[in-house]
Amino acid sequence: EQRIDLGATQVEKGGYKHFMAKEIAEQPAVLGDALQHYLTDDGLNLPSDLDFSNISRLTLVACGTAFYACSVAKYWFESLARLPVEIDVASEFRYREPPLPTDSYAIFVSQSGETADTLAALRYCHEKVAKTVAVVNVPSSSIARESDIALPILAGVEVGVASTKAFTCQLLVLASLALKAARDRGHMTEAELKQHMEELRILPGLLTRALDLDETLNIVSNDLSEARDVLFLGRGAMYPLALEGALKLKEISYIHAEGYASGELKHGPIALIDSHTPVIVFAPHDPLFDKTVSNMQEVMARGGKVLLVSDRKGLEIASEGVWQTVQMPEVPDLFAPILYAVPAQLIAYHTAVAKGTDVDQPRNLAKSVTVE
Amino acid sequence: EQRIDLGATQVEKGGYKHFMAKEIAEQPAVLGDALQHYLTDDGLNLPSDLDFSNISRLTLVACGTAFYACSVAKYWFESLARLPVEIDVASEFRYREPPLPTDSYAIFVSQSGETADTLAALRYCHEKVAKTVAVVNVPSSSIARESDIALPILAGVEVGVASTKAFTCQLLVLASLALKAARDRGHMTEAELKQHMEELRILPGLLTRALDLDETLNIVSNDLSEARDVLFLGRGAMYPLALEGALKLKEISYIHAEGYASGELKHGPIALIDSHTPVIVFAPHDPLFDKTVSNMQEVMARGGKVLLVSDRKGLEIASEGVWQTVQMPEVPDLFAPILYAVPAQLIAYHTAVAKGTDVDQPRNLAKSVTVE
Repeated sequence: EQRIDLGATQVEKGGYKHFMAKEIAEQPAVLGDALQHYLTDDGLNLPSDLDFSNISRLTLVACGTAFYACSVAKYWFESLARLPVEIDVASEFRYREPPLPTDSYAIFVSQSGETADTLAALRYCHEKVAKTVAVVNVPSSSIARESDIALPILAGVEVGVASTKAFTCQLLVLASLALKAARDRGHMTEAELKQHMEELRILPGLLTRALDLDETLNIVSNDLSEARDVLFLGRGAMYPLALEGALKLKEISYIHAEGYASGELKHGPIALIDSHTPVIVFAPHDPLFDKTVSNMQEVMARGGKVLLVSDRKGLEIASEGVWQTVQMPEVPDLFAPILYAVPAQLIAYHTAVAKGTDVDQPRNLAKSVTVE
Repeated sequence: EQRIDLGATQVEKGGYKHFMAKEIAEQPAVLGDALQHYLTDDGLNLPSDLDFSNISRLTLVACGTAFYACSVAKYWFESLARLPVEIDVASEFRYREPPLPTDSYAIFVSQSGETADTLAALRYCHEKVAKTVAVVNVPSSSIARESDIALPILAGVEVGVASTKAFTCQLLVLASLALKAARDRGHMTEAELKQHMEELRILPGLLTRALDLDETLNIVSNDLSEARDVLFLGRGAMYPLALEGALKLKEISYIHAEGYASGELKHGPIALIDSHTPVIVFAPHDPLFDKTVSNMQEVMARGGKVLLVSDRKGLEIASEGVWQTVQMPEVPDLFAPILYAVPAQLIAYHTAVAKGTDVDQPRNLAKSVTVE
């Protein structure tokens, strides 16, 4: 924690009211830095001894926001590389003594690299798996030092307690790893790799356009700040985004927000729906769009107020009867979670500002959790 | 759904105010029926062609409450049989095209056996895994018919929309499967099996004693019914119980309840803690007890009101400063989740009755979800 505090005193807010606002706005730049490091003209810049071709399984472990980055990455590794992935929160993983195949890798994601439970989980995996990999923001951290391979996320110092730019940079590193795994395992041609690399390279530009929605999201958030409870919904890789949106809102606005897989709604939580509980739906126009919209319509049929975050195509189809819409830039399906992090963050930020909470130092929370 | 409706008209409430109360109270009896079926004097009564010795992985898929039964079972299969388990909600599983090893089994859990997403997930697995297994309450259902092996949970007709006795019977069948897997894979001696079978056999008696807490839980629930938000905490196999307790409360009382792994609390949700949000902690005195208590104390240090559900030993150690306590019978660590289902259910039931909601037919919900 000392390391972080030291950084905090040296970093300025640069004209922003809060570190969190500054760090959200920095994302196109830091994502650009990470892209420049991991994607070169020749291909992916990742250690060659990180070879996914003969492993049977991948384990991803983290806490909080970093865990949701792992949850998104599971979709990437499984769909691109056909590699089964287990994800777990570190505090559960370390105590349940999970069986780990020796021909597997384990990846640990932590902004500070000092998260106590994640470090303990890493130590549990030593000698049990073929390789341990750290994905961290602080290269000199314990988790980086104790892993076989450490990959920096290159987000720069993050001061706001609610993680923002670290999340998108974690996603970028994990996406690069998934692309490498797909190539190593023969599930992706060189041409497909180049195409996906191009899709990653346009993200900083798309994030800049998403940041232009700041004022729109500010207005929406004024209404949200009146709510006591909020639900977030998503399907596929948008489901972890729903969880992250809810966590962010909880952390800094103290509104009881909860994320749900859209398809699980009717197995219980739909009972909560009334006109007082806004439901925020993350749904780019992708192959799961129709299913998500059908769940959204069930919410509206029961009097629920829906905020639909989608793209032009999606809004053309599904805006009717929706309380509020936010039109995002179009984005390649695969990497939409990186882009949709921006509205998730800005909604939390503006709602907290409207409520007048201490955005950068929310009650009860510490930046890095170095106790168990 | 027709099948269920027909059952409903033939079943009487038998002196109870609601079907849900009756079904909660029936648990010692139906669990006894299931025990008699699956545990014989000679050992476990499970199909001999269900052989776990040479499989590399197990996949468990379900929705809602049945998914939380799968989440508990993951701990059992992994700790007893050292068999890696992946669990997923059906609506996510079916669309993400998960890679499945051919030397694996997939188990589908559904009370009605007609849950649309679970049925679609089963169909995805055909030809991909070595064997599909259904764990259902209705043996003539689609999921039972389309699986290689169907195991009845023997809970009898369940009418209340909020699943109760089906949950504990699902757990019993999954526990029996985990014991068989442990024997098949050489991780359990015959003597250890006999001991665990004895531990299962005492459960109906323990459940009866837990049901005697009805009046205590009724009084606690009167206070809970004033809350708008409630958190449930647990570690290890008590974490899914926390999720199930929250789901039950949501479903029938419309209180926004959320379950969390105790260790994740400080990575965000602890920001929600104030004196208005009761926190219900499920913590039998087991090897994880001290860690859970430490998280509970963080909640109390921030002004949170804690309801601690534990046993005599646990309460002797950790009652100080706690808002309310509920003393459960002592129970073998492994099968505590089956016993702790009872207070989870009774809290939801009495809170809903105190709020005056329609317990057996909560708003917006159907008993079996046969649409996607």
